[in-house]
This record gives sequence, structure tokens and C-alpha cells, in this order.
Amino acid sequence: MQLTRYVNGRFCTMQGKDYGLVENGEMQVADGRIQYIGAAKMAPDNGGERIDLQGALITPGLIDCHTHLVYGGHRANEFEMRLNGASYADIAKAGGGIVSTVAATRAASVEILFEQASKRLKHWLAEGVTTIEIKSGYGLDLASERKMLQVATRLGEQHPISVRRTFLGAHAVPPEFAGKADQYLDYLIDEVLPTLHQERLVDAVDVFCESIGFSWAQSERMLEAARRLSLPIKIHAEQLSNLQGAKKAAEMDALSADHLEFLNPVDVPTLAKHGTVAVLLPAAFYFLRETKLPPMEALRQHKVPIALASDSNPGSSPAESLLLMLNMACTLFRMTPLEALQGVTIHAAKALGAANEIGSLERGKFADFAVFDCQHPAELSYRIGANSCIGRGYRGAFSWR
Amino acid sequence: MQLTRYVNGRFCTMQGKDYGLVENGEMQVADGRIQYIGAAKMAPDNGGERIDLQGALITPGLIDCHTHLVYGGHRANEFEMRLNGASYADIAKAGGGIVSTVAATRAASVEILFEQASKRLKHWLAEGVTTIEIKSGYGLDLASERKMLQVATRLGEQHPISVRRTFLGAHAVPPEFAGKADQYLDYLIDEVLPTLHQERLVDAVDVFCESIGFSWAQSERMLEAARRLSLPIKIHAEQLSNLQGAKKAAEMDALSADHLEFLNPVDVPTLAKHGTVAVLLPAAFYFLRETKLPPMEALRQHKVPIALASDSNPGSSPAESLLLMLNMACTLFRMTPLEALQGVTIHAAKALGAANEIGSLERGKFADFAVFDCQHPAELSYRIGANSCIGRGYRGAFSWR
Ligand SMILES: [Zn+2]
Ligand SMILES: [Zn+2]
Repeated sequence: MQLTRYVNGRFCTMQGKDYGLVENGEMQVADGRIQYIGAAKMAPDNGGERIDLQGALITPGLIDCHTHLVYGGHRANEFEMRLNGASYADIAKAGGGIVSTVAATRAASVEILFEQASKRLKHWLAEGVTTIEIKSGYGLDLASERKMLQVATRLGEQHPISVRRTFLGAHAVPPEFAGKADQYLDYLIDEVLPTLHQERLVDAVDVFCESIGFSWAQSERMLEAARRLSLPIKIHAEQLSNLQGAKKAAEMDALSADHLEFLNPVDVPTLAKHGTVAVLLPAAFYFLRETKLPPMEALRQHKVPIALASDSNPGSSPAESLLLMLNMACTLFRMTPLEALQGVTIHAAKALGAANEIGSLERGKFADFAVFDCQHPAELSYRIGANSCIGRGYRGAFSWR
Repeated sequence: MQLTRYVNGRFCTMQGKDYGLVENGEMQVADGRIQYIGAAKMAPDNGGERIDLQGALITPGLIDCHTHLVYGGHRANEFEMRLNGASYADIAKAGGGIVSTVAATRAASVEILFEQASKRLKHWLAEGVTTIEIKSGYGLDLASERKMLQVATRLGEQHPISVRRTFLGAHAVPPEFAGKADQYLDYLIDEVLPTLHQERLVDAVDVFCESIGFSWAQSERMLEAARRLSLPIKIHAEQLSNLQGAKKAAEMDALSADHLEFLNPVDVPTLAKHGTVAVLLPAAFYFLRETKLPPMEALRQHKVPIALASDSNPGSSPAESLLLMLNMACTLFRMTPLEALQGVTIHAAKALGAANEIGSLERGKFADFAVFDCQHPAELSYRIGANSCIGRGYRGAFSWR
């Protein structure tokens, strides 16, 4: 068992209720896991290789717990049309909207999807992200959903990052099931999900519960199917309207409910009771010029863990920087820099059901960490569009950037 | 005279009223200037080294025409205090606000300021920015303003980027002149500006004309002093209130008027008449959660050139990405991707009085250019927090990233 000692670091452990800052800290790693984290002067001396972190700030590896990173094409043309005055009808007529992404995703090979997603993923790697969740949901048939999840799997195999794969077949109704949402759900429930689950491609199941997506009754069917397979569940809820999806998914012990701008504060205690994480997606809020804020005060008051994620997707959030989400959360949602950092570390880990393994620098957890050229962790939230990440540890393998 | 031929590029020349896209283009460069730009099949064959751009998209080198890049310290602590509920009075009591930046800037050596600004500047270099304007204005005395402008000068000497230095002594009244703004202006006009101008440290003069800054009468004195020295002038105007600074500075033939959220549409024709560029600063708008939009329709109607800039500064816009400004301009101000790209190329060049040398890919201009892994220029505006720059030419010297 080879030991590596990371010395001369300022460790932002995210243990406890604040940054858990350890000045003059040391972290000892073996077998990809943290053996010791704490004051250097208290560290056991068991030999090992020493890596000098030169006084830099170390956080847990960042976690983006909600992305749609894998997709074909992009929608810059649609973005430009809209800003030049085109209506949604014009764009639909020109083949735009989610339909265009589904068509491009279906048409693309695994290799092309992998190459394009890898290019995007480089931004996450560069910012010290060590875990990323990736959803399917632009395939909408068995072969294409499989292809997306295979690409997600390969991304985790070929890059130093852990990928959590979420099945989001219930993202939209595909053209071939137009007007037959319930039959599409039958297909997902009877055929697609069981098959992909059997192929070990699914870590969790999500659903787009929304006035323009699936009703609660439909969402519930999908989530129940997931539960029958003992898969953890998540929900896109209360983004554009209030269908009470978050509350009802929480009652089914959902890991997280995501978006939540239209969540009614009276439903917040249910999230708290079931340990459901509120995942906020500030880039979608920003990009759609939403004005309704998530119920921040109720979430805080009831101590619901709040995570932050990029929601990276070609339609409503073409965001490729998790660090920028910290600033957006502070600026737009008035979260504090501490809450923002919790949102991409320990709370994001909870949103993935992985807080026993990642999300804080703690003895026994994976040695996933990010090294920043910062004096204070609040700088991570304060700076806009800057990347001060200078190093990255993943399962114990370390490299400077 | 050594010739370099950049072949197999898709050149977004920004000539004319649109992207000026040349597919299958070639650019020939000698002595740091463009000798030919256009269709490959029309290019003269004068030998020379060939560089294959592999079908990438090439834009003029990007230009950030409004920054306060050089400063001591940072204000992440103040940001965090505010989000934890501290009032402006609390922050002032804790030594926050611009006063803290002035104190830190005065206390810092040239070397420290250079090192810190260089670290930030790397973000601009990485995004294909080839010209950056940097303002003084955190020194507020002769020695410290000189120090800031010396650092700005050195940044341009030691990095592959052109730096335009703007004297902004009239940024705030320093503590030693508290309550004596006019005496401070006397000092700037009689002593500081003439000295720094004689030392060849000043390319332009700016003033913060605002209810919390200098009145128009005061601003006018400063700008008149600049004009007596034949220096171009700029103004921070109509950011928080309407003092008609933009209109009045335009009447003095200002190169640009910057911010402009509170500009009255009736004053827009005056900007148009005098060729004054409207410089919009979307990150400050975003960071301050401003809701009043600049008068976009009037600016368009009267064909005022609109530039975009980061306004990078520690207090109201800790932004370090010019590409992000394109997205913010589209998202927040509803500019089109074309307008956004003009805003950081040809219009930004105009805002610096340099449109004869930079800002478009045009025969005779400097061979400053950026190479992007993009299919269409609208992607530069569409993507949030992504950097697709893969190469950079500055005065003809080229490197891949
Ligand atoms: Zn989503
Ligand atoms: Zn400014």
C-alpha cells in the first residue's frame, strides 16, 4: 500500500457546518482513499511520497450533479434566430427545439457523441470537477438511449472523472409517439428501462415533470417502475409551473428534486423530512431570464440540503462551467459562498446518493480533490468566469494543471 | 519580408455589416500585418510558410475595451459579508468598498501588482483576446497612479497582447481629499495628468461621472484638461442615474461612453452624430442585479456602434472572461450574436480609436486573430462559460493553445 502525503495545503474539508478549513494541513492517501486529513503537526509519520501543495487551497473534488452533457449537434442557430426576432413557431418550423437535438443524437455514432462530449467535458476536468452526473433523454428509443448511456459510461472510463448515469427516457415524447405519452411511458417502463438496467447502464432514474413535460400521474408511473428495480429516483420539478412533483417525489424518497423555482414553500418540509436534496440550476434560470426565485428562505429554514449544478444542455442551459454556477447562485439566488461551495461538494454528493464516498475531505472517502490558487474559498464564488484551479486529484492520482 | 500563409480557415472577417464569413479562406501575413485575406482560390502565390487551420473558425483578435485589470487585493470577503447580510455601513466599517482596493493598491509593489494582474490576464490570453484596455484609478495619487500605468505598460511588454492605458484619476475622491473633490481635481489636472502624460504612460483619459462619483461640471474639467493635451477621452456615464454625461462627453467627441443603463433615448442621436461608441458592460449589470436596460432600440435605430467589455474590477464586476460577455449581452440585453461579436471586435476597436489598425481581418491591419473550434460564430455567444479558442495570432506570431 503506497502512501502519498499532500503537505503544505490549506484544506477546505467541508466537514461540519462551514468550510471546515484546516490551515497548515496534511492529507495522506493510499489506495485512492483518504487515510488522514488534518493538521500537519498531528499527522502520523508513515513515510510515503510527499507532494508540496505550496500553500494552495484544496477543496473536495467538485461535483456537478445534474447535466445533459451527451447530445448531438448544438442549438446556436436557434439561439441566433430567436435573438433576431424569430418566434417559437418559426423555430419549430425550421426544425428547432428539443426535436432537433433528438434527431441529431439519434443520427450520431457513439464515436461522434463521445468526441463531442469529451471536448465539453474538458471544461469540467479543468475546473477540478471529479464527479459528474449525465442524463440520457435525447434518444427516446431503446437504441438511442442505450447509445447515450454507453457514451456516458465511456466518458468515465477514459477520463479521470466519475460519471453517474441517469436514465431520463421520460424527458419528452418522441415524434413517433406524438399524442401518445402514456403509450410511450409503457414502452419505457416495459422495455427500455428494464433492458438498460439489465445492461448495467443505469445508476438512477429521472423524469421531466412539467406542464410541457409529463404530468405527475405519468411521472409517478415512471418513478415507481424505477423503484421496482431498486433504482434511486430524481425529478425535474417546478421549473415553469407548480405540479407538486417535488413534494410527491420526496414522498417516494427521491434523492433530489431539481429546478424548483415554482416550488411552494409549504411543500418544503416534505423534502426535509425525506432527505430529498433541492438541486438548483442557476444557469437555466439565467438563460431563460426567469424571474421567479426558488423558495430560498423556506429551504434554509427547514434545512433542506441545497445542491447546485450546471444543467448543461443545448436548449435551456448551454453552460460548461460549474465554477460559474457558484457565482450565479450567489448573484441570482443570494446564496452565500459557503452554501454555494456546499452545493457543489457535500450536498451534490447527497443528491447523487454518494455522500458516504465523496463530497468532503474525510478519512475513508475517495481522495478526489481540487487545488485552487486562492486565498479564501469565497473567491471561488466571487470571481466570474475565472478558473483558479491549478491541480486535481482523482482517486489519489494527482496532477498539476 | 517573411510571408506566412494561414490556409484552410473559415474566416469571420467582420468586414461590412455582418460576419463577413469567408469559407475556404486564406490569410497571408508579413511584418505582423495582413497582406491578403479572402478566398483561397484567389490568393496570390508568393511562397511562404503554410499553417493549416484545419477548418477552424478565425475571428479578429478579441478586444476588451474597458477593464480595471490592475489592482491590489480582492474583495471576496466583502462579497461574502454582503451575502451573509452585512449592510454597506457594516462593510465600510470593516474597511471595505473601493477604499480597501485603493489602500491595497497603494501598498502593493509594482512586482506584486504585475504578478497578480498577469495571473488574471492569462484568462484573456486564453480566450483569444489580443487587445485590452486597462484603466488606472485605484491609486488616486501621482505615485500610485503612475505605478498602475507602469504595470499596465509592462503587461503589454511581457505578454502577447496590446495594452491601451487609460488614466482614470477621477475614479473616486481619495481619503486625503475627503469632501474636497474640486481640490482633488485641481491636483489631477495641474500635476498628476500632465506628469504621467509627459512620461508617456497615458493613451486616453476617463472619468467616473455619477451621482456617487463626479458631477458633470467636474467631469468636464477633467476631460477638458485631457483635450488640452490632445488625449482622447472616455466617460463612465449613466450607470446608476442620468447626469447626461454620455451626451455631453459625446459633444466633446468622446471615443466612448460606457455603462449607459440610464441613458435617455433622446440623447442617443448625439452619440451617433459624434461617432461616440456605446460601451455596454453586462457583467456589472448582472453582478449589481440591475434591472434597467440600456436603450437598445434607440442605439440600434441611430446606428450607434455598440461595444462590449468585461469592466473587470474587484468591486462591481469581478469578471475574467470576455467570451462570457457575449452570452450575457445576448441573454441580458437581447443583443444578437452578430452584435455581440462586433462588440468585442470592430466596435471595441472604435471605442479605443484604433479601428484603422485592429478589429477586423482586413488587408493592412495587424494580424491579430483568434482561432476557435466552432462551426458557426453564433456559438461564441451561445455557450456559457466555455472557451473554444484553440489558437491565437498576435502581430503575426501564431501559436496553438
Ligand atoms: Zn435538466
Ligand atoms: Zn469601469
